[in-house]
Amino acid sequence: MNEIPYKIYIEEKDMPKAWLNLKAYMKEQHDPFLNPVTLKPCTADDLRPVFCDAVVEQELNCTDKLIEIPKSIREFYYMYRPSPLCRAYFLEKALGTPAHIYYKFEGNNTSGSHKLNSAIAQVYYAKEQGITSLTTETGAGQWGTALSMACAFYGMDLKVYMVKVSSQQKPYRKEVMRTYGADVIPSPSDTTDVGRKILKEFPETGGSLGCAISEAVEVAVSTPNCRYVLGSVLDHVLLHQSVIGLESKVALDKYGVTPDIVIGCCGGGSNFGGLIAPFMAERLEGKSDVRFIGIEPASCPSLTRGKYAYDFCDTGKMTPLARMYTLGSGFMPSPNHAGGLRYHGMSPVISKLYHDGYIEARSVEQSKVFEAATLFARTEGTFPAPESSHAIRAAIDEALKCKESGESKNILFGLTGTGYFDMAAYMAYNDGKMSDYIPTDDELAKGFATLPDIEQNR
Amino acid sequence: MNEIPYKIYIEEKDMPKAWLNLKAYMKEQHDPFLNPVTLKPCTADDLRPVFCDAVVEQELNCTDKLIEIPKSIREFYYMYRPSPLCRAYFLEKALGTPAHIYYKFEGNNTSGSHKLNSAIAQVYYAKEQGITSLTTETGAGQWGTALSMACAFYGMDLKVYMVKVSSQQKPYRKEVMRTYGADVIPSPSDTTDVGRKILKEFPETGGSLGCAISEAVEVAVSTPNCRYVLGSVLDHVLLHQSVIGLESKVALDKYGVTPDIVIGCCGGGSNFGGLIAPFMAERLEGKSDVRFIGIEPASCPSLTRGKYAYDFCDTGKMTPLARMYTLGSGFMPSPNHAGGLRYHGMSPVISKLYHDGYIEARSVEQSKVFEAATLFARTEGTFPAPESSHAIRAAIDEALKCKESGESKNILFGLTGTGYFDMAAYMAYNDGKMSDYIPTDDELAKGFATLPDIEQNR
Repeated sequence: MNEIPYKIYIEEKDMPKAWLNLKAYMKEQHDPFLNPVTLKPCTADDLRPVFCDAVVEQELNCTDKLIEIPKSIREFYYMYRPSPLCRAYFLEKALGTPAHIYYKFEGNNTSGSHKLNSAIAQVYYAKEQGITSLTTETGAGQWGTALSMACAFYGMDLKVYMVKVSSQQKPYRKEVMRTYGADVIPSPSDTTDVGRKILKEFPETGGSLGCAISEAVEVAVSTPNCRYVLGSVLDHVLLHQSVIGLESKVALDKYGVTPDIVIGCCGGGSNFGGLIAPFMAERLEGKSDVRFIGIEPASCPSLTRGKYAYDFCDTGKMTPLARMYTLGSGFMPSPNHAGGLRYHGMSPVISKLYHDGYIEARSVEQSKVFEAATLFARTEGTFPAPESSHAIRAAIDEALKCKESGESKNILFGLTGTGYFDMAAYMAYNDGKMSDYIPTDDELAKGFATLPDIEQNR
Repeated sequence: MNEIPYKIYIEEKDMPKAWLNLKAYMKEQHDPFLNPVTLKPCTADDLRPVFCDAVVEQELNCTDKLIEIPKSIREFYYMYRPSPLCRAYFLEKALGTPAHIYYKFEGNNTSGSHKLNSAIAQVYYAKEQGITSLTTETGAGQWGTALSMACAFYGMDLKVYMVKVSSQQKPYRKEVMRTYGADVIPSPSDTTDVGRKILKEFPETGGSLGCAISEAVEVAVSTPNCRYVLGSVLDHVLLHQSVIGLESKVALDKYGVTPDIVIGCCGGGSNFGGLIAPFMAERLEGKSDVRFIGIEPASCPSLTRGKYAYDFCDTGKMTPLARMYTLGSGFMPSPNHAGGLRYHGMSPVISKLYHDGYIEARSVEQSKVFEAATLFARTEGTFPAPESSHAIRAAIDEALKCKESGESKNILFGLTGTGYFDMAAYMAYNDGKMSDYIPTDDELAKGFATLPDIEQNR
């Protein structure tokens, strides 16, 4: 038997008891969120009507390095955590590489992804505050499923606005949420002003994430004791996701392994931000020179081709503005793009670290992503989500470089989830019908034209 | 923190190195398989044209208590095993029971079920023998997926005959198999004599499991270096599945826990047979008085209302005859039955143990099964397969009895898999459209009329 097992599980007693707040390690903070009406930096008071109080406090906390994970959340984590830290022996063998590849697998729970880590925290704090119902939006359904599970656990009412075309194409995803007790409403709907307005103007529309966010926020701010919750991008979500990196570090430390490269896929940045947290903290403290690589789809390249500017977090332009790498909230990725990660912007924390040179970024085309996904499934067994497969692609590429150079680097990547609900994309790949869309400069320019014309962007 | 963790993982070094052959502990063996042509007991020679040699040897082995798991299979097991042995703290709390409920969760792999445990073993032995291709049938697709994964791992060609109506209703299941490199053929097809014959007679048929088996067997016996593999019922499959029970026992022993009741769902019996193996061995040796309860659907009640008789294992009547509890190979469960476990017969080993009084059996109606599944999903998080939920139902019922009596019994059940590909059934339940079909005595009589009219059945 190999000295390092195929899967490193850590004991419950060794699981993190506090999240790591990466911002407390950063020499410079990202620029503040701006109130969308006044364009002044957001205060806690600006955020409290939308988000619950504890979450607002976490969002603005730049000083506490560790923030305790409440006992109830830790107990819920025991339900599906620790997630396994796997050594990819089979993939290494197939590649013939001297590199050692590790991946943290977050798909072994019913939501099928890492999203549950933040969902349970946000529902807990809402419950503590006496909030009685929550709203959110969901596109493909992973976030909606995670939040439904968390709400079932704490007995919290939940309305999920699901992009109409997704709810039609993925009726089974909707059914999972219903089984957990959520009320799933195809968006746009006649339950909100914004929904009714859109329906009147475009009765045939299939909806959009931006519209679903707008409906969810409208209900949250107009219903007593109701709040809105978001599954990515924001700082408090990255904080909750630090449990991914913290567990990974405990597992690797158990065997004295230090990663040379940490790789994650980047949509809104919550998974990548969580995975890198403790390793980046060490680097920021000058204790390591580990490299960090964020991977995004060539079709939605916010880090590699976007602008570092203030932008709305949603296409409905209702949320605060964040300074981040963005393609413009009006950027529309090609409908041919099957591989997830369609968000126009990027977590402000990740954006700042990238801007300051701590993170490298790369984009990959989707047929290369599915090629990597298929090799991974056949060698390592697990059927990866298209999103996660961006990280697999980069890990394979780095391992092949090691094969050329003869180096035994330690590569760690995040396998965020499983692809069981993404089979239409795999079908397109298996049938040779997947196209590699890359936006032209003209198309990007159209997105950039939707950036807000404010002083800070000039 | 509780003394017993929410999930008990065992170390790789503590994983079983040999399967447990329950037959070597049984005082009486089940009656021999009969050659379907001669009606004489099957010899190894009768079985070798269909199954590979090592598997035939295991099928007929009644003497070796332990059979070594080859190193290559153990390495593959490391990919997804050990599976977690979970303590259902949240479910116990929701029920308010003093019982301690444990479940062994086999769904954390891409096949979504325990089927992979035998698939990898059967492919390994075929590869060792120089077999170059395999055939099998699949209904819902779990077995086909498991076998596709195993064949991808060993680079073995695979033809999966998938019941046509299932391949139409579950195109995504088909796609998972294709991603692992399998050739998935809707059955009946024009690739076999039996398929062409059925298509000529019933051009509009949606196919059946019996027909798919017949096509797979025809290809296996008529193609050089090709064999057929089966995912349940047979003794060698139960042998491979003993890894479930063996791991469970190591995990429970670690905390000094002895189960009072072991519960499993029964379709063909492979999961139940595997889960109970080491505990039944102890009981057969007089070292324990643990109870065993097999749960089957009221709509397909082979143990509770079937006959103990010789019958064909397939509806096509091509396989050897086994003496088992059966409803007759011509028994057709209602199409309204959503909850899996549709097989007309039952593993000969399980049948014999039941006949000899070592196992209790119960049947449950499907709305009660989905009620239990929903409670389980909401409290324990994992989204259970309908099949597995039969065992959940019984575990809950036993835990509620403990609540009345005040006893803290240790209840262990098998959670065989996840329900992500069974959402149509959940949808019917959530919509209140699930019917509780129970076959009438007349309907059962029609099935019994299809039992073979041979001397041993008179």
